[in-house]
Amino acid sequence: MEAAAVKPVLRVAAICGSLRKASFNRGLLRAAAEVCEDSIPGLRVHHLDISDLPIINTDLETDAGFPPAVEAFRANVSQADCFLFAAPEYNYSISTPLKNALDWASRGKNCWADKPAAIVSAGGGFGGGRSQYHLRQVGVFLDLHFINKPELFVQAFQQPPKFDSDGNLIDDQIRERLKQVLLSLQAFTLRLQKD
Amino acid sequence: MEAAAVKPVLRVAAICGSLRKASFNRGLLRAAAEVCEDSIPGLRVHHLDISDLPIINTDLETDAGFPPAVEAFRANVSQADCFLFAAPEYNYSISTPLKNALDWASRGKNCWADKPAAIVSAGGGFGGGRSQYHLRQVGVFLDLHFINKPELFVQAFQQPPKFDSDGNLIDDQIRERLKQVLLSLQAFTLRLQKD
Amino acid sequence: MEAAAVKPVLRVAAICGSLRKASFNRGLLRAAAEVCEDSIPGLRVHHLDISDLPIINTDLETDAGFPPAVEAFRANVSQADCFLFAAPEYNYSISTPLKNALDWASRGKNCWADKPAAIVSAGGGFGGGRSQYHLRQVGVFLDLHFINKPELFVQAFQQPPKFDSDGNLIDDQIRERLKQVLLSLQAFTLRLQKD
Amino acid sequence: MEAAAVKPVLRVAAICGSLRKASFNRGLLRAAAEVCEDSIPGLRVHHLDISDLPIINTDLETDAGFPPAVEAFRANVSQADCFLFAAPEYNYSISTPLKNALDWASRGKNCWADKPAAIVSAGGGFGGGRSQYHLRQVGVFLDLHFINKPELFVQAFQQPPKFDSDGNLIDDQIRERLKQVLLSLQAFTLRLQKD
Repeated sequence: MEAAAVKPVLRVAAICGSLRKASFNRGLLRAAAEVCEDSIPGLRVHHLDISDLPIINTDLETDAGFPPAVEAFRANVSQADCFLFAAPEYNYSISTPLKNALDWASRGKNCWADKPAAIVSAGGGFGGGRSQYHLRQVGVFLDLHFINKPELFVQAFQQPPKFDSDGNLIDDQIRERLKQVLLSLQAFTLRLQKD
Repeated sequence: MEAAAVKPVLRVAAICGSLRKASFNRGLLRAAAEVCEDSIPGLRVHHLDISDLPIINTDLETDAGFPPAVEAFRANVSQADCFLFAAPEYNYSISTPLKNALDWASRGKNCWADKPAAIVSAGGGFGGGRSQYHLRQVGVFLDLHFINKPELFVQAFQQPPKFDSDGNLIDDQIRERLKQVLLSLQAFTLRLQKD
Repeated sequence: MEAAAVKPVLRVAAICGSLRKASFNRGLLRAAAEVCEDSIPGLRVHHLDISDLPIINTDLETDAGFPPAVEAFRANVSQADCFLFAAPEYNYSISTPLKNALDWASRGKNCWADKPAAIVSAGGGFGGGRSQYHLRQVGVFLDLHFINKPELFVQAFQQPPKFDSDGNLIDDQIRERLKQVLLSLQAFTLRLQKD
Repeated sequence: MEAAAVKPVLRVAAICGSLRKASFNRGLLRAAAEVCEDSIPGLRVHHLDISDLPIINTDLETDAGFPPAVEAFRANVSQADCFLFAAPEYNYSISTPLKNALDWASRGKNCWADKPAAIVSAGGGFGGGRSQYHLRQVGVFLDLHFINKPELFVQAFQQPPKFDSDGNLIDDQIRERLKQVLLSLQAFTLRLQKD
């Protein structure tokens, strides 16, 4: 008797583009982890910390390799099956800390290559939208395969409140839309992985 | 007898998006300073160092203000009449150190506001081109007025060599095109300033 | 006795990117014309019709010049002091009819060159926002000088209704924001024109 | 005895963004068709003509459907397994005829949805590069899955000549790079299709 095929548990590396403690974008990633634990058995969110990465300067690369924090980050990126970026919009583009992380893991052997990804964001205005399209252009060179739909832009300052003062997501509709993003990321990852 | 009108000497703050010592983009800014000293009496290039700015995290802002390196940088940005950005392309977008500098001087009172700017870049592929268009979008929010023409994209790896191993510009045609960029920046700055 | 300096009446060429009769974007331009007549003495809006332009094909250019509808449009563009684009977003970019008009008046002698411009848009999602940034990139080559602020993105499907069924703007707050766009365009045009 | 699995022949719909007869971009698509016939058994290029599409105006849509030329084009788009766009750069963005085609086939039931695509372009400057990134943003809404690599930008005016006066590709290196684009499109299409 043949064993039933077991859907693998996919490892989603979640990266927050803001270093602020109470960041709404970080709150979206915490909510994503909860959603996976509660209702998406095949998906597990692993937060990758980027706060200790030095600002990129390729003069820091030596024969011995990258600075230790960079090496550790790169190893975590390489182990992921796919990525979830929380991409705040800073001045109509990608936030500096996120760009820094993207740049470091692209040096030498590109650790992002050929993996699926999704983007969520929270902010004023377009809810982080302008950042997402710049990030998608970066993804062409990094060889990331972004899901197209659904997109999630959380307009964080509209009433009723979407986040509490610690940056926790408190809006059930957005939580449901976040779940749809995660399901789409899971489906696209499986579609690209299967042989 | 009335004194002849004296064209003011404009202060160009030059900012290099790469922290590498031998950066070609830094070389473009050194060449720009030389061109101004040699042949554009009304324009003086002042290099702004961005290598000691911490990576942006608004939790670092306190009632006492910004970290000291940020305060100093913001003061220099505020004193400029216009800007010259050397904007390398990292992964199809703006380099992290440049985005960091743009972000820090936009916090609170936006120090970039209503000032003219020009962009030059050097690199492989499009010679930094993709970075320039993302930077222009950032400029909408920062309220920078970019010159449209001429654009300068230096394809740094084509023969004959454009830079020596220290990153010094050694190509006279590019030096002349750089001069045209500076003259256009000067003209646009005067046009926007005059009352 | 010398006459007091008279502020010139500036000619704003208004171009709507949608060919639909009841287009909200067309409604924004009608409202802009009303606002100028009612409260901005120095600014007059002239609608440029683009519905009869053939789809661009440079094989249509002959020694005798451009097709008649194109010649007429180009003459109107050339006479304008500045531009107001109503730029709907079609599939995350510039609408086809607007791109067609931009392309025709750029052929041979670029009719847009060195003139100020502003963009407004109405639509779902970001209210036309993605179109505006692509249009700004086009403007670099066309040598348009876009105002940076304020931007106007009308989220046309949010309550309360912003337009009636004929596409007329019926929201006073948006009318006031439209006025601020026009005043900014006027000020920037005068600033760039004055000798 | 079961038949060996036969690799399906994939139908690539090829769309040229220029209507000019001697267009270099059209020449790239002719070369792509030849390359497939000569050396990629599993891929066949079908040219979709877009020259008779009216300029988009949704007032032309009636209860009876779309204009006949639009209906025919939409049917051809729907039958394709994947797409090859030859995307000239007009004024730093997508050409009008290509945008028109993209828009018509997106109306009502989106005919592009969930299909792979590749872009090639020829031109001055960046070889059409700016058009490609705007097209990729359009693809997010159209739900196209673009290959990331390789990209092909043909700098059409560099020596030695890349095209003859009829627009035929005469450069073997570019023909080989075009083949790599097609192989990447084939592989990505099969990867996304397989169940």
